[in-house]
Amino acid sequence: MAPASPRVVVKVDLKKKPWQQNQPLHNRWHPEIPSVAEVMAGEFFRVEMVDWTGGAVKDDDSAGDIKSIDLSTVHYLSGPIKVVDEEGVAAKTGDLLAVDICNLGPLPGNEWGFTGSFDRENGGGFLTDHFPCATKAIWYFEGIYAYSPQIPGVRFPGLTHPGIIGTAPSKELLRIWNERERHLEESGLKSLSLCEVVHQRPLANLPTSKGCLLGNIEEGTPEWERISKEAARTIPGRENGGDGEISFCGAIEMSGFLELKCEIIRNGMQEYLTPMGPTPLHVNPIFEIGPVEPRFSEWLVFEGISVDESGKQHYLDATVAYKRAVLNAIDYLSKFGYSKEQVYLLLSCCPCEGRISGIVDAPNAVATLAIPTAIFDQDIRPKTRKVPAGPRIVKKKPDVLKSTYDGKLPITKNPTSFFHLSFYKEKLHLETNN
Amino acid sequence: MAPASPRVVVKVDLKKKPWQQNQPLHNRWHPEIPSVAEVMAGEFFRVEMVDWTGGAVKDDDSAGDIKSIDLSTVHYLSGPIKVVDEEGVAAKTGDLLAVDICNLGPLPGNEWGFTGSFDRENGGGFLTDHFPCATKAIWYFEGIYAYSPQIPGVRFPGLTHPGIIGTAPSKELLRIWNERERHLEESGLKSLSLCEVVHQRPLANLPTSKGCLLGNIEEGTPEWERISKEAARTIPGRENGGDGEISFCGAIEMSGFLELKCEIIRNGMQEYLTPMGPTPLHVNPIFEIGPVEPRFSEWLVFEGISVDESGKQHYLDATVAYKRAVLNAIDYLSKFGYSKEQVYLLLSCCPCEGRISGIVDAPNAVATLAIPTAIFDQDIRPKTRKVPAGPRIVKKKPDVLKSTYDGKLPITKNPTSFFHLSFYKEKLHLETNN
Amino acid sequence: MAPASPRVVVKVDLKKKPWQQNQPLHNRWHPEIPSVAEVMAGEFFRVEMVDWTGGAVKDDDSAGDIKSIDLSTVHYLSGPIKVVDEEGVAAKTGDLLAVDICNLGPLPGNEWGFTGSFDRENGGGFLTDHFPCATKAIWYFEGIYAYSPQIPGVRFPGLTHPGIIGTAPSKELLRIWNERERHLEESGLKSLSLCEVVHQRPLANLPTSKGCLLGNIEEGTPEWERISKEAARTIPGRENGGDGEISFCGAIEMSGFLELKCEIIRNGMQEYLTPMGPTPLHVNPIFEIGPVEPRFSEWLVFEGISVDESGKQHYLDATVAYKRAVLNAIDYLSKFGYSKEQVYLLLSCCPCEGRISGIVDAPNAVATLAIPTAIFDQDIRPKTRKVPAGPRIVKKKPDVLKSTYDGKLPITKNPTSFFHLSFYKEKLHLETNN
Amino acid sequence: MAPASPRVVVKVDLKKKPWQQNQPLHNRWHPEIPSVAEVMAGEFFRVEMVDWTGGAVKDDDSAGDIKSIDLSTVHYLSGPIKVVDEEGVAAKTGDLLAVDICNLGPLPGNEWGFTGSFDRENGGGFLTDHFPCATKAIWYFEGIYAYSPQIPGVRFPGLTHPGIIGTAPSKELLRIWNERERHLEESGLKSLSLCEVVHQRPLANLPTSKGCLLGNIEEGTPEWERISKEAARTIPGRENGGDGEISFCGAIEMSGFLELKCEIIRNGMQEYLTPMGPTPLHVNPIFEIGPVEPRFSEWLVFEGISVDESGKQHYLDATVAYKRAVLNAIDYLSKFGYSKEQVYLLLSCCPCEGRISGIVDAPNAVATLAIPTAIFDQDIRPKTRKVPAGPRIVKKKPDVLKSTYDGKLPITKNPTSFFHLSFYKEKLHLETNN
Repeated sequence: MAPASPRVVVKVDLKKKPWQQNQPLHNRWHPEIPSVAEVMAGEFFRVEMVDWTGGAVKDDDSAGDIKSIDLSTVHYLSGPIKVVDEEGVAAKTGDLLAVDICNLGPLPGNEWGFTGSFDRENGGGFLTDHFPCATKAIWYFEGIYAYSPQIPGVRFPGLTHPGIIGTAPSKELLRIWNERERHLEESGLKSLSLCEVVHQRPLANLPTSKGCLLGNIEEGTPEWERISKEAARTIPGRENGGDGEISFCGAIEMSGFLELKCEIIRNGMQEYLTPMGPTPLHVNPIFEIGPVEPRFSEWLVFEGISVDESGKQHYLDATVAYKRAVLNAIDYLSKFGYSKEQVYLLLSCCPCEGRISGIVDAPNAVATLAIPTAIFDQDIRPKTRKVPAGPRIVKKKPDVLKSTYDGKLPITKNPTSFFHLSFYKEKLHLETNN
Repeated sequence: MAPASPRVVVKVDLKKKPWQQNQPLHNRWHPEIPSVAEVMAGEFFRVEMVDWTGGAVKDDDSAGDIKSIDLSTVHYLSGPIKVVDEEGVAAKTGDLLAVDICNLGPLPGNEWGFTGSFDRENGGGFLTDHFPCATKAIWYFEGIYAYSPQIPGVRFPGLTHPGIIGTAPSKELLRIWNERERHLEESGLKSLSLCEVVHQRPLANLPTSKGCLLGNIEEGTPEWERISKEAARTIPGRENGGDGEISFCGAIEMSGFLELKCEIIRNGMQEYLTPMGPTPLHVNPIFEIGPVEPRFSEWLVFEGISVDESGKQHYLDATVAYKRAVLNAIDYLSKFGYSKEQVYLLLSCCPCEGRISGIVDAPNAVATLAIPTAIFDQDIRPKTRKVPAGPRIVKKKPDVLKSTYDGKLPITKNPTSFFHLSFYKEKLHLETNN
Repeated sequence: MAPASPRVVVKVDLKKKPWQQNQPLHNRWHPEIPSVAEVMAGEFFRVEMVDWTGGAVKDDDSAGDIKSIDLSTVHYLSGPIKVVDEEGVAAKTGDLLAVDICNLGPLPGNEWGFTGSFDRENGGGFLTDHFPCATKAIWYFEGIYAYSPQIPGVRFPGLTHPGIIGTAPSKELLRIWNERERHLEESGLKSLSLCEVVHQRPLANLPTSKGCLLGNIEEGTPEWERISKEAARTIPGRENGGDGEISFCGAIEMSGFLELKCEIIRNGMQEYLTPMGPTPLHVNPIFEIGPVEPRFSEWLVFEGISVDESGKQHYLDATVAYKRAVLNAIDYLSKFGYSKEQVYLLLSCCPCEGRISGIVDAPNAVATLAIPTAIFDQDIRPKTRKVPAGPRIVKKKPDVLKSTYDGKLPITKNPTSFFHLSFYKEKLHLETNN
Repeated sequence: MAPASPRVVVKVDLKKKPWQQNQPLHNRWHPEIPSVAEVMAGEFFRVEMVDWTGGAVKDDDSAGDIKSIDLSTVHYLSGPIKVVDEEGVAAKTGDLLAVDICNLGPLPGNEWGFTGSFDRENGGGFLTDHFPCATKAIWYFEGIYAYSPQIPGVRFPGLTHPGIIGTAPSKELLRIWNERERHLEESGLKSLSLCEVVHQRPLANLPTSKGCLLGNIEEGTPEWERISKEAARTIPGRENGGDGEISFCGAIEMSGFLELKCEIIRNGMQEYLTPMGPTPLHVNPIFEIGPVEPRFSEWLVFEGISVDESGKQHYLDATVAYKRAVLNAIDYLSKFGYSKEQVYLLLSCCPCEGRISGIVDAPNAVATLAIPTAIFDQDIRPKTRKVPAGPRIVKKKPDVLKSTYDGKLPITKNPTSFFHLSFYKEKLHLETNN
């Protein structure tokens, strides 16, 4: 009757670099990367993970590490983990793997994380045309609550998720990925539907040997050379799972542990998941939402339509609509004493919800961003009284950590908003004298 | 101390056509359409509305009305309603109008609605390349619950919303709308980012005199001629509000009533809503979610990425990702005894949630569709046991009402799915013999 | 394909007295009261009901009607309704009747209700030793929201329920009821465990001909004479169902309609409900909570233990503990600008939750009352800042309607609280001068 | 910028006995027990705790430890902890101490707990007249989920709480407690309102030197002798806080950690908490419910009224009503393949809710117990189909660990239920042959 503590099948040492771990990590999807651990179906086990930068971003007072990060050396995954049934037969292509996420959290002694936005010319991001500078906010935890010295007045229970989780692709699926992403990369800017904001980023992150880590496959061997040219980058979500971010920028990034249980539903893909694409491999994961999560009853919801900041009408483009919803939220919340960078980072990790609200009435897609009001220590709802209620808003708040932007790409300004902002500041000044 | 029954400020007669109502309706946005009623800020009032087709779709056993509907005679709105403050001064441009939706429901004696999908060559819709036929399902209500004879085994409390609600645009905003939508229409197919599915639909619905109803402005007068050429179609959501659909197809469409209260926040647009576009008019509405809604704790979530059915990789296109999530859900649920048309219509109106899950990791946008499991009378979650549990699934269910598709546009087939479907039917047959 | 509007099986005319209705009402439980309507299992039907006083309490500015109400002429029920299966066989003793409450609401034109507390010597109530006067507050509705001119600053979506609903008892069950309640009444005060607060009320309401209404059984006939002496009063909940109040005083009392569907589970009592008492008739109803209800995420919770106001220790008495929790809540909320009578009536009808928290650790039972913070227009949580925030609290608010108490029974005072209250008022006064 | 890991202010060693810990524990409430740690207001700190038996109950396959437990050596608390403000001034009588429970969980390596019921003659419990034997179930954890080998088919995310938490009573408050509890103990059985079920337990647990542990105060010293005769037992909840159990038996008992933050609201008791009793000390704690908890949407609710198992009518006795609601739930759930002991222990720790539903309509108090249906791996709702669906119910399930009852006190049997139970078993037998 020993307690059912989870068996730790992957352990990491945060004092070591990702490529120095005892159990090797990997940062590519490829079927030939050897498994580093084996678990039984039904077994309860634990996996430790480094943060996605492998420790490159520090708990310090500078955004310089974000600005100068080497993006070829990121996204290190723990595993692969082989799942076998009672008779020792491993899960195979065509089976459905049911993964029960029983728990996840920080590693003891490392209870902190960060949210950042990249420099426009080194990574960029969703709103990089508006926010070209690299920024960083550090988050600490008080039990289930997260707070940041750089974004004061906000505290929330996190909506935790494992970031990237997925199954190894088959060779055939991997080939499909590489072909379609290469085609996008090669057809280039003419395939873009978004406003010009994003074109300085690579359109896709194709296989490359640079920074490639393949677990037990030693760098420089012929096998490594071959696989590193085939293996898919782990950045986007694909048919095999992937990135579980619920928002648009990056969550609170941190190292941590996952506690899991797996079941194998033999031939489950055929039973449950009819492929909807050109090949039988075009299937997508299914999720069930867990029973324990932050409970909020009051939400403020911002809307965007598929008209971009220049006024251009796009056709049912949910990405543009969502971008506008987020910009609207940032602008609104910046009236409550925050810088826009603060709100941008906040919305990247707080338990908000981005929804597609209208996708049929041409030409406007409608997207919304719902923000729980309870995470703020002030009432952020519009009122007939003027906005800044009480003396606290006039106190200068610390801002996020921010680097300079030295690049040459144009960034998006909104002239009208500047007028209002300065007007607003005047008003604040007067109130200070009350 | 008389009871605070709402004052009915707009009444409709469902036996009359939309253009025959005593208080005239309108189906265009234009600042010069005269108001048909006036309310005080703080007053509790009621507005009755026809369904969006103005009674063209019937509670009968044919989808013919959907197939042949004249789409120039739709989207009839009640109002405009003038809102004045205690001193009789009306809300004006720059004010923020806070509209409290206190209640909404069907009109007594007309407790039914419909969900439909249009013929590919007369309206089309989100998945029209997969579902080219006009279809229709009728929904009845048992109190808060909706059920449809055409989609048996499902019953849910509705997530009610008012459809289209908005403020009259200023002349300047109207001009902006018309310019940007005309530009889209004229630049044509080359501006499309979606797969070819939608190009047979008009890219935008520009102002037209055809079917134009302008409230108290009499048809044929010079004023009518002028305004009908300027006035915006009510179909998409825009800066002034618009369509509140939470999903991708059409909700349960019905006539009904709205009970409202309005507050005027003078100059609220400047206070709260910094414009984010090229002009100070580019603002969007903000919502608060109401406190009473269906409560579900268990959801099955389907994911899609921005790779279309042909396997083509799109760049961070949330619309494509969402389309794939919906197709994945349709396919999955069709394994539980439903036709795909049944699931398509069901997902168009049940309390599901479409979310944008990943919008930053190029090249894949990730979208999800979350479906509450409790609306089904069977357990739709994947299990290690085979799918069809019990005898009920082999009973042939009634399907949705469906017209033929006589058009010539190509439609999207998924060859691999047909194989699985027939395989699946064989299996069912065997089980029937148990 | 006619719409599924519910068939109205019981109609009431609010202009008539309860005993003048076309379909007779009844205010007793007895198996021989003839049914006034018949429905099919699975049929969707509607029942109209008078409020529990049958119109004796008015929407006016006096609590006099509450003070002088004749409590022998109350609790008029609509029905009985006979439920038959497809072959016309009625539900019978031993069957389980599943009643689906599909909807309920006010009758059109009568969208108001009241909450009241009785005079200590005419009815009394849960806290009658503290609040001996009859009080009344009128509630109006703005759609789903209730508000009261007598309790300003509060607005909430109601948690609606049907009040009294039940099945007719068998003769044997009725006999059991009458015997056990008569025994209590006769054993009198010596059986009391509560503090003296309640002993002036009848301990039980035994059968009486006074005010007895028996539906189609004409008053004065021999049958009426017999049944009126046997038939149980409808006041408390018993094995057959009964009063669905979720709180301790009386909800917002009103006339209204119910929309229902019934299923008969034959012999279901034996299948599902093993009697737990001395006879096979001692079973109790089971409920499922509906999917649509007000959603609150933030609650303030008050605790009480089984020590009464005099300091006397009771043994695991959850009633005393709950009384103390309610008194604690009343006292706390009275610091935010309300009279205690206002809070008492508010807590009698708002969507709060009374819970039993500890029932095992002798000698203290622990009970709690959880109150959603969102129903108030001010923040009622304790803060390090002093309580009265902002100028609004010093405005004199209207109070509930209140009659005098002319009786002679002692009432409970709490001397210490008066000291604090006057201190508090002084403080308020000072703040007014700010 | 070091991470904000909580400072561990109380550490326990589970290999040692409670009275052998480096930082001494205590099992009494008394103002003179010296604090063992000091924290600052606003500081984030961690406290470790032994389970309430101090390790006397083992993770093994026998209920013997429960049966023979020495109840004088239990309820060991960590602390006292002194809370000081920025100037080093400690919280004092009259201040309001706001304690923010940021997190709680098991101690690493001891992720297990137990639920038990005591022997009727050594502790007893809420339903000890029905369940006289000592029983035990062991719970293990898979991340947030708890499961028990003794209660298969059930798995739930725990609704965690700290058990006993409270402030030190003042001398005056302590005196009040001792007086009122002694009075109860001395007045004896004649003060009982419950049925005879509970009278073999002590009516109150008065101060006693036996098993008394007083932190840093050494046993046998004159100070210890004095205080041990005054200090209150920690068993019931009182004005200073206490037992946070949400149910009627005991939760999943375990060792664990708490992460806390405290704020001092100076003079807050006077500001916020008007005493409602005979002295200004009669106040009770207030709680706010945390934002993260298991989310269930479907509940089955069992009702009880204040008529006991012998058929005796009690007057508005919520304890009796709640007992009947729990008995009804146990009986119902025992039809789904469980023993009654299994259900009793399950309901003692799963996230169910006990509510007071009616407390005003004499003579019946009405209480309910709501159970979330999602914690079971079968559908427990009543259906028109017979109860036992599928083959799984006929498999003999393991039962809870159970000792014999060797006592002589009468226990409550329910003859009618035995008939049904045997009938039911026969039916099960037949089904086994299918």
